[in-house]
Amino acid sequence: MIAEPQPTAGAVFSAQEFSAWMQQCLERTESALSRWVGVGAPAGLGEAMRYAVLDGGKRLRPLLVWAAAEAVGGLPAAAIRAGCAVELIHAYSLVHDDMPCMDNDVLRRGKPTVHVQFGEASALLAGDALQALAFELLVPENDGTAEEIPAALQARLCRLLGAAAGSQGMAGGQAIDLASVGKQLTEDQLREMHRLKTGALLLGSVRMGAACNPQVDPAAWEALTAYGQALGVAFQVVDDILDVVADSATLGKTAGKDAANDKPTYVSLLGLERARAHAEELCAQAHAALAGSGLADTRALAALADMVVRRTH
Amino acid sequence: MIAEPQPTAGAVFSAQEFSAWMQQCLERTESALSRWVGVGAPAGLGEAMRYAVLDGGKRLRPLLVWAAAEAVGGLPAAAIRAGCAVELIHAYSLVHDDMPCMDNDVLRRGKPTVHVQFGEASALLAGDALQALAFELLVPENDGTAEEIPAALQARLCRLLGAAAGSQGMAGGQAIDLASVGKQLTEDQLREMHRLKTGALLLGSVRMGAACNPQVDPAAWEALTAYGQALGVAFQVVDDILDVVADSATLGKTAGKDAANDKPTYVSLLGLERARAHAEELCAQAHAALAGSGLADTRALAALADMVVRRTH
Repeated sequence: MIAEPQPTAGAVFSAQEFSAWMQQCLERTESALSRWVGVGAPAGLGEAMRYAVLDGGKRLRPLLVWAAAEAVGGLPAAAIRAGCAVELIHAYSLVHDDMPCMDNDVLRRGKPTVHVQFGEASALLAGDALQALAFELLVPENDGTAEEIPAALQARLCRLLGAAAGSQGMAGGQAIDLASVGKQLTEDQLREMHRLKTGALLLGSVRMGAACNPQVDPAAWEALTAYGQALGVAFQVVDDILDVVADSATLGKTAGKDAANDKPTYVSLLGLERARAHAEELCAQAHAALAGSGLADTRALAALADMVVRRTH
Repeated sequence: MIAEPQPTAGAVFSAQEFSAWMQQCLERTESALSRWVGVGAPAGLGEAMRYAVLDGGKRLRPLLVWAAAEAVGGLPAAAIRAGCAVELIHAYSLVHDDMPCMDNDVLRRGKPTVHVQFGEASALLAGDALQALAFELLVPENDGTAEEIPAALQARLCRLLGAAAGSQGMAGGQAIDLASVGKQLTEDQLREMHRLKTGALLLGSVRMGAACNPQVDPAAWEALTAYGQALGVAFQVVDDILDVVADSATLGKTAGKDAANDKPTYVSLLGLERARAHAEELCAQAHAALAGSGLADTRALAALADMVVRRTH
């Protein structure tokens, strides 16, 4: 076999290469999630946990973890666990968000939401158990096999996940969101809310991937942080755009609900055209960060930024 | 000053000594919780988190962590964090348990429950944020001070907490509980439900305390595990008894709700007198485990077992 040419900075994936990369990463993720989620749990709880996580979702966060880990030459066993852990935090937040006391949504990923399918109490518990499992995945007992993850890396991944998920991350952003319904927000306030609500976990994904190499170059860490921040905002801007322009069937969730709930969004604040331009600008910032990272191969990260901005659901 | 005599195996605390020990441990716990909970969170969320955790609760779990850590000569900085982490898991579970879709309770520790005070959505988020914070507390950045906790210990504490809190621990037990309302359970099924629902976190407290000395003797570890298991069951038996014999004012929560909710309990299964005898038997088992632990000073653990069985609320 001929060795593939070593990619150099600035090289890009063809659509086919990216698709193959995604395919492989998604298979690895689905297989790991299926092996870990709900296993050993009491029957009803395990079923609700698996329903909430498996067979659905774009897996953007595990893709980001993996792409960042590859870019820095991180430990694969750590990257796969980190990717699944972040996805479980994302999944639990959707389960709780969809509940009647929050967004009261009945459709998610084209299926009835967890509380519709299993009842509210089970949805609450399944979400709680998924959060605990996220942290558990990061701290496997070291057993002397090739899958060992050094304790310092385990602890660091927990630290990054906790910061991304907790009151100064995702949960904090949701609380600001809750308090802001029906209020007029400035662009700064809206940005701060989303920096926490969606951005923290996306940035956390990139950082956890980068942390999979404990010797990662500090300049690369900073560049990947800048990339993750730009991508996090871009994701939310596009989400707000899609909520307006796409239909529920395409989204796999209820469209138009931000306006219906009188929630401030980038579209309500900037208008559709300026929101679109803002998303493209953020995408360019993400690419610029990668170009300045000093990392040899950031093709997957670059392609993921494009995907986030150009997605239709 | 004359040095106090070194306690020997089998020595017991006087009521006064135990009271002083408790006092000191509770002050340390309250002060740490106040320093860590809700700080840096968006205002409304931080307030709900602090309301759920501060100024209330017996702090049994932190007391157990600290007593076990003392018995094995564990690292104090780790024990204080572990105690607070376990208490946060306990507190979040109460917040979610009290919600209308679960037990729908309006009174807790003599105060309105979190969802009554702040609304359901805020209660849901505060619980979620408390769980994330529990794990965050266990993995502080090591900064070269005396408070440093080795990474291996950080990871191990996360592992023990995750197992105690998640689908194979507390959350799993709650799911069995939920599925068993209105059903006839055998004593074995009831015991299994409580082993997870209440027992896992109490056992987890003892184990996390014991883990604070990474070189803890394996025989002592096993003995403390047996102690924690007996104590966990005893706690629930007494809880079931108090639900029947105490009034709401004494309990600080709604009394008689198990019968009202048609929940199987040790009292409904064994009757009041046999339930009481069972609690005493479990207390004796806990003492026997300590006596065989090979540890020089288990006075606090012994006194805590007595307190659990003889409490009136």
